[in-house]
Amino acid sequence: MIIVMSRGSSREEVNTVVSRVQSLGLGAHLSEGEEVTIIGVVGSPLPSELAGTLESLPGVERVVRITKRFKLTGWDFHPAPTVIDVSGVKIGSNEITLFAGPCSVESEEQTISTAHAVRAAGARILRGGAYKPRTSPYEFRGLGERGLQILADAGKETGMPVITEVMSPNDVESVAKYADILQIGARNCQNYLLLEEVGKAGKPVMIKRGASVTVEEWLLAAEYVMAQGNSNVILCERGMRSFETATRFTLDIGAVSVAKQLSHLPVIVDPSHAAGKRAYVPSMSLAGVAAGADGLMIEVHPSPDHALSDAAQQLTFDQFSALVPQMRAVAQAIGRELAPDGADIASGAVAVG
Amino acid sequence: MIIVMSRGSSREEVNTVVSRVQSLGLGAHLSEGEEVTIIGVVGSPLPSELAGTLESLPGVERVVRITKRFKLTGWDFHPAPTVIDVSGVKIGSNEITLFAGPCSVESEEQTISTAHAVRAAGARILRGGAYKPRTSPYEFRGLGERGLQILADAGKETGMPVITEVMSPNDVESVAKYADILQIGARNCQNYLLLEEVGKAGKPVMIKRGASVTVEEWLLAAEYVMAQGNSNVILCERGMRSFETATRFTLDIGAVSVAKQLSHLPVIVDPSHAAGKRAYVPSMSLAGVAAGADGLMIEVHPSPDHALSDAAQQLTFDQFSALVPQMRAVAQAIGRELAPDGADIASGAVAVG
Amino acid sequence: MIIVMSRGSSREEVNTVVSRVQSLGLGAHLSEGEEVTIIGVVGSPLPSELAGTLESLPGVERVVRITKRFKLTGWDFHPAPTVIDVSGVKIGSNEITLFAGPCSVESEEQTISTAHAVRAAGARILRGGAYKPRTSPYEFRGLGERGLQILADAGKETGMPVITEVMSPNDVESVAKYADILQIGARNCQNYLLLEEVGKAGKPVMIKRGASVTVEEWLLAAEYVMAQGNSNVILCERGMRSFETATRFTLDIGAVSVAKQLSHLPVIVDPSHAAGKRAYVPSMSLAGVAAGADGLMIEVHPSPDHALSDAAQQLTFDQFSALVPQMRAVAQAIGRELAPDGADIASGAVAVG
Amino acid sequence: MIIVMSRGSSREEVNTVVSRVQSLGLGAHLSEGEEVTIIGVVGSPLPSELAGTLESLPGVERVVRITKRFKLTGWDFHPAPTVIDVSGVKIGSNEITLFAGPCSVESEEQTISTAHAVRAAGARILRGGAYKPRTSPYEFRGLGERGLQILADAGKETGMPVITEVMSPNDVESVAKYADILQIGARNCQNYLLLEEVGKAGKPVMIKRGASVTVEEWLLAAEYVMAQGNSNVILCERGMRSFETATRFTLDIGAVSVAKQLSHLPVIVDPSHAAGKRAYVPSMSLAGVAAGADGLMIEVHPSPDHALSDAAQQLTFDQFSALVPQMRAVAQAIGRELAPDGADIASGAVAVG
Repeated sequence: MIIVMSRGSSREEVNTVVSRVQSLGLGAHLSEGEEVTIIGVVGSPLPSELAGTLESLPGVERVVRITKRFKLTGWDFHPAPTVIDVSGVKIGSNEITLFAGPCSVESEEQTISTAHAVRAAGARILRGGAYKPRTSPYEFRGLGERGLQILADAGKETGMPVITEVMSPNDVESVAKYADILQIGARNCQNYLLLEEVGKAGKPVMIKRGASVTVEEWLLAAEYVMAQGNSNVILCERGMRSFETATRFTLDIGAVSVAKQLSHLPVIVDPSHAAGKRAYVPSMSLAGVAAGADGLMIEVHPSPDHALSDAAQQLTFDQFSALVPQMRAVAQAIGRELAPDGADIASGAVAVG
Repeated sequence: MIIVMSRGSSREEVNTVVSRVQSLGLGAHLSEGEEVTIIGVVGSPLPSELAGTLESLPGVERVVRITKRFKLTGWDFHPAPTVIDVSGVKIGSNEITLFAGPCSVESEEQTISTAHAVRAAGARILRGGAYKPRTSPYEFRGLGERGLQILADAGKETGMPVITEVMSPNDVESVAKYADILQIGARNCQNYLLLEEVGKAGKPVMIKRGASVTVEEWLLAAEYVMAQGNSNVILCERGMRSFETATRFTLDIGAVSVAKQLSHLPVIVDPSHAAGKRAYVPSMSLAGVAAGADGLMIEVHPSPDHALSDAAQQLTFDQFSALVPQMRAVAQAIGRELAPDGADIASGAVAVG
Repeated sequence: MIIVMSRGSSREEVNTVVSRVQSLGLGAHLSEGEEVTIIGVVGSPLPSELAGTLESLPGVERVVRITKRFKLTGWDFHPAPTVIDVSGVKIGSNEITLFAGPCSVESEEQTISTAHAVRAAGARILRGGAYKPRTSPYEFRGLGERGLQILADAGKETGMPVITEVMSPNDVESVAKYADILQIGARNCQNYLLLEEVGKAGKPVMIKRGASVTVEEWLLAAEYVMAQGNSNVILCERGMRSFETATRFTLDIGAVSVAKQLSHLPVIVDPSHAAGKRAYVPSMSLAGVAAGADGLMIEVHPSPDHALSDAAQQLTFDQFSALVPQMRAVAQAIGRELAPDGADIASGAVAVG
Repeated sequence: MIIVMSRGSSREEVNTVVSRVQSLGLGAHLSEGEEVTIIGVVGSPLPSELAGTLESLPGVERVVRITKRFKLTGWDFHPAPTVIDVSGVKIGSNEITLFAGPCSVESEEQTISTAHAVRAAGARILRGGAYKPRTSPYEFRGLGERGLQILADAGKETGMPVITEVMSPNDVESVAKYADILQIGARNCQNYLLLEEVGKAGKPVMIKRGASVTVEEWLLAAEYVMAQGNSNVILCERGMRSFETATRFTLDIGAVSVAKQLSHLPVIVDPSHAAGKRAYVPSMSLAGVAAGADGLMIEVHPSPDHALSDAAQQLTFDQFSALVPQMRAVAQAIGRELAPDGADIASGAVAVG
């Protein structure tokens, strides 16, 4: 931590800062330049409020934090990329993983038919919402536990692990019974009690980046899960809120590269929520693959214009089937793989526990 | 709802849209202009996914929603301003209410001394966090139930109702035992299960606007609480996330006026979190009063630079005491009142149940 | 400037950085902590690309700039607040200055009548656009030089200096013939050649903050003008672009306090463009006064719903006349003045050259 | 245009709106629903301030614009994609065009060597700044006309058309003497006089999207150029300003798809300015190709850490040479081409006039 004193700060003000730092058992290195005096703070751990505390002392202009705020999610503490094995599907490996399925689980038939369709096209993880966060209380909010059951059945039948959102600490146990991966939605990205609860559940966790959460804060959200001893965390970029309204959210494609430079965790891109309109999903999906994402999560529905949620952004089976080979070609162009179509399923290569 | 057909849309595409609307038991008014054909949808209720559904049909350019998404929070359903009586403190009345207290409850002494100081200066509601949402898991996270007890005691001793944040549905019951107003933090503004749970608790609820939540979405968050039968909801603007980093958040002062035009609920301004630095708190506080806020919520600490959270933004007792008369003067300048200083307390005018 | 080396950086990498710094004639202070090694750069001036250069060297994690980028606009080089005397109107003094007038100069009658109305209510500077930046080329773009003439005449007749926007370096000379203050619009806030040109024109300059320009960049825009020897610069906050669409822009009320803390220049608030709807203008105007702005700039039109630009946000004469006494009351509440109504004009106290 | 009346609006208010619309020679279609009354405005052209005007009438809740604001840039008026032939380089064709070169022209040697290097790797257009917009007046601002000369010479020697920024209407003529494409920088995206001036210069124009400019406004900027009779306009996405600071700007990858859906103009991606750090440039470049951009513009410098501007984001020759084949592979994966490396130059296939 570096303390920058303001131009006119007095000798006494400098001394007060130094004393304060030393009173905490930390070292203070004084460096007096021509223009500014700076004080380096040496030692650890630094109290979390230290910056704010020092910044409020007279004569201090600002305090610059030097060390990173996250630990477990960073490369310093885990020098190899994390690969998460979910029933044989290796997320974070050289193979790009396709997560696909309906926005909401609406019925058995809808879910099973979608599962077959996406599996046949190349998806490896089945997604589907049973508890749906909705902006208005007057909208469809999911089938709840019945939806979880349907999703799990569809996953078993098609040989795909399943991922679904959990919205409340109270639901973690029941969702974890059915789901192979627990999803934290963007609105709950900084719901710290929920993050800790899923951290304890013993299942892989995918954390969607909140719409106005920085990459650093996203990694700190992951830190909450990892601090519970759960190292199987997946990051998912799904768009930030911006002034642009042509798309539902603004996909921060640069965040893929930033997150991978700062962290060893796999990074997934969700183009569906960012786009908000299906016409934009293919372009954003291909961009996600090319940018280096370890997976894509795409919403698919047998009849999107009858969907009970996110009707405008879900792809049809045909649209998804047409998109996958393009994604595969782009993956190969950058030296990665993307799961082949479902011809291999019969071989039983994937077994879901 | 208005459906705008694209320029080259065919007769058949128009018919398909009309049929779809009619199949839902709704009316479709066709209007063919020189440049565009539009179809008005008449009837109610409109299915929540209708816009997305229609937008995905061939030939449709876009769908414009006409009716408001919120009901209970709007003037249409409640033509008089809501005034919430919390043990005699009338939030939303002509008197501007001061909420003040430490960011976190750190100790009995810290809390009681702050309560006395802010009460003497003119505060009417005591704030203090017992469960603290922190960006990093390695920071001070509050005293929990012990903190609630201290806060409630301090409120009783000084004749002030208390407000504190609840972060999880599981904690609602215990927090409601101690608190007079339940606070939903900005990060939980769209935590819908929590909103419903506090809606059932029978206590007034203050909802902080999330950092990237529109005013409409904020009102829909309030709608979640009100839909549970709880009409005592207070809105609190505390700053949005923007590109500007000089302040911690960007106080959206215009939102005070917008929210009051759209809703009958009281609107409070929290300058402390928006500012992030105490030097900016007075200016933003006065602006909040002048803008027409029904209350201000300000963090105050006996020794901010020793605070365990938000050290940089809390005011000292002296700073708060100096600020209140200025706020009072501004309140009077716009024809409102602000509680007098604490000389009246002894009279027992305020009794906390 | 502080260079933070990455955790695993080698001795050789550190040496390379040190050599590079020294090769530029600057000093390098090495400080090796337990967690990180940092190198302080001492000396001046620092080359403008130094941070980028050093950040690209192997082993460097990041570079932190310590000194401020702006000079002439900061307090260090000008320890007293700047007060700009425009024909007797003292902008930046204890008296808050009202700038008012139509968005566009549309006709002689419209301009003169507005000038009389705002002057009578308490305005001291007449605003009006002759060259209008419009998002679409198919919109009214102002009367050009004829508009300048009308504006200047209206200013003379009512004893008010006038301010108008200049959009191109080519127009600076002709605009400066008519205008007492040259306005740089938000869209041209970083049009550096224009800034330099107005810097040379010998007239006070008001710089509107661009919609996505930080306070620091705004001060650097002012620096461009001041570097030409023109110290009469006024800053004007008129709203930033954000995700919120209820208002046209988001008035960054906190920027008033930030700008005044960083700079000695007067700060004006323009609530009209931020609001975008006249219903929100009074609340935001009062907030601007309370926040400590040195002036307010408000659009007024004899018949706003017939205006050729910004119809939705201009106030009527009656609305403006009703607002001014409220602003005056708020000004007095915080110990400042606001010009009395126009009764004093006849005395000839204000003479425009 | 649709006028939505507020719930409690009176018959008289409705009549006033209808009369106003009719007084402008436009038709008014009244539609009274159960919940709301709406009035459709029929006829054209609509006055530009009509929405604001109507919105300010009593009883009007809001006004919804139905027709698009841009014409010449939209598909309605130009149903085939625009392909711009610049000395044989076809921008907007199936071949993705690489624009590359230094941020600033610093010297003859630096420019020529870069031109050779990028041409050999596959670039087809040489970029280089002679007039540099800089946030601070104390930074290197380009060599001016001498830089233009160097750039043009380098283009001739390597058989590449050149693109360079023009910052002022005054410079358009001289820049157009040297440049094959005129670039409007992001800060000047809404500098309308400059847009018109380049519209008249008879050379292709590339418009960088401003950092807080919506896609619609970007198209309206292009409309300014096209309204001068210049149909050779190229759009360039280079990142928006957001709350995220890990990258210099936030590349809005979704804007590629949106712009291409709304407009027939070619869309280029500039990953260098969005990234701000060279480590992120390859990922964002590949994403741009995969997203469907018609070209990429990448900064390359012989020795980036000695560059006089944008030192942190420019690629070395080796980095660029390594990236191009990856971009080419991605281009082919989506069925497009990317220029082969420079082996063909000698054949004289490209001749610059």
